[in-house]
Amino acid sequence: MRPTTLGVIGLGAIGGSVAREAKRAGLSVTGWSPDPAERRAALSQGALDDAPAQAAEVARAAELLILAALPAANLELLTKLGPCLSATALATDVGSVKRSIVARAEALGLAARFAGSHPFAGTQAHGFDASRAGLFTGAVVYVTPTRGGATAAREIAHFWESVCGARAVAMDATAHDTQIAVTSHLPQVIASLLGRYLAEHVPRGAALGPGAKDTTRLAASEPGLWTEILLMNRDMLLPTLRALEEPLGELERALESGDARGVSAWLDRGARWRRSLEP
Amino acid sequence: MRPTTLGVIGLGAIGGSVAREAKRAGLSVTGWSPDPAERRAALSQGALDDAPAQAAEVARAAELLILAALPAANLELLTKLGPCLSATALATDVGSVKRSIVARAEALGLAARFAGSHPFAGTQAHGFDASRAGLFTGAVVYVTPTRGGATAAREIAHFWESVCGARAVAMDATAHDTQIAVTSHLPQVIASLLGRYLAEHVPRGAALGPGAKDTTRLAASEPGLWTEILLMNRDMLLPTLRALEEPLGELERALESGDARGVSAWLDRGARWRRSLEP
Repeated sequence: MRPTTLGVIGLGAIGGSVAREAKRAGLSVTGWSPDPAERRAALSQGALDDAPAQAAEVARAAELLILAALPAANLELLTKLGPCLSATALATDVGSVKRSIVARAEALGLAARFAGSHPFAGTQAHGFDASRAGLFTGAVVYVTPTRGGATAAREIAHFWESVCGARAVAMDATAHDTQIAVTSHLPQVIASLLGRYLAEHVPRGAALGPGAKDTTRLAASEPGLWTEILLMNRDMLLPTLRALEEPLGELERALESGDARGVSAWLDRGARWRRSLEP
Repeated sequence: MRPTTLGVIGLGAIGGSVAREAKRAGLSVTGWSPDPAERRAALSQGALDDAPAQAAEVARAAELLILAALPAANLELLTKLGPCLSATALATDVGSVKRSIVARAEALGLAARFAGSHPFAGTQAHGFDASRAGLFTGAVVYVTPTRGGATAAREIAHFWESVCGARAVAMDATAHDTQIAVTSHLPQVIASLLGRYLAEHVPRGAALGPGAKDTTRLAASEPGLWTEILLMNRDMLLPTLRALEEPLGELERALESGDARGVSAWLDRGARWRRSLEP
């Protein structure tokens, strides 16, 4: 699918970037944000052709509707805007947890016209000011089909690839949420855990090197967004968090007993893995 | 102090960078590495004027001797090379833990001629190939005096500032080790802990975003070096590691009970702190 009219609900870093990219690709783009100033900014910066005051107008005009609000709001928006979609329109979202929105689409009878999307191109920045064309170039976008929605999923995957230059990867919503708990939600918690600790224990004026800054970069992410994400995926995330206790205790015991071989082997596992990645 | 002859023992990322910087500043630089190939590389790339086969020759020729081997080796090198120093020469090291080397200098009767240094400009890369002139420009270098070594500490601080363009910060060795356990050693452990976990749980071929990569960048650091650092500072580090259990448990309980306000407040602490830093 390469729609000629795109609707974007939510004009933050992701929604704004999709709008900019679609405009650049020549689509007619309508968008909505609950914040009138954000709608005006998106219009004046050429990310939108139209920014009506009502989200329903965006839904009615779109061949493809993209829900890019916060995850819990996307669930409500799908319920509210589903009936506004034209008979042939498709819809997707851009949230980081996929089981809940896929289940909602199925429950609403939208299975044939919805697939979940998760562009794996987040940033700790947020809001329309953090949006940019090119954000998705080369990025993975997971596309999670509903039961019976394989065709819609293929169309939506094609949108991400042909309009946004992304690499679409089809994946079952449960498999996605399992994987993303490890590759994304866990790093967020770890960075926030370290950030909390440093906030309380770094002496005022003490220097921080690039190491501490990189390790905590994600801690600056928006707490409101991440509260929803972590809660929606808590069943996948909690076992992962609890599983950290054992290796942490292992290091503590090796340090206590002065076990240099144990400490070195402990560090070595992550070092070999991290060095095997591209920078 | 702005010496005219510098001796560098250990030609890794830090030692090699000091040598390059000193050469650029017009000093005569002699260096030694246990690895003949590293000595040849440093000579052929213009980082050294001379690279004798014996470390003692470097110590004898230097007005300032810099020990840039691994932390445990630096302790031995100070013992072995101290007697080779000329009567007016000074010595320092570049390790990340300062109490042990400062105590060793005092025990060896070198208190008036030694101060510890810790250039806070590490990199996860290592070896002479990772060295570069300019590594210390604008970086903090902690200088930790011995008892009775205030003059030597001032001279060595002046070397870091005038020759390497660094910002020297004088600090008691115990205060340094306390602070660095939090600002540097803890982030290393956290990155390695996450790296270990991801090494074992990321499905083959799964995409990793910049978040997971940044949060684990330090995990690629050299295990041999970090084993020595963590063990030398374990009395400062262990209480810090144990102190992570409480906030991690706090998040787990908030997630279990669906406490959105609790999760949000938990994330908010680190977010405000991290946003207050420059990028």
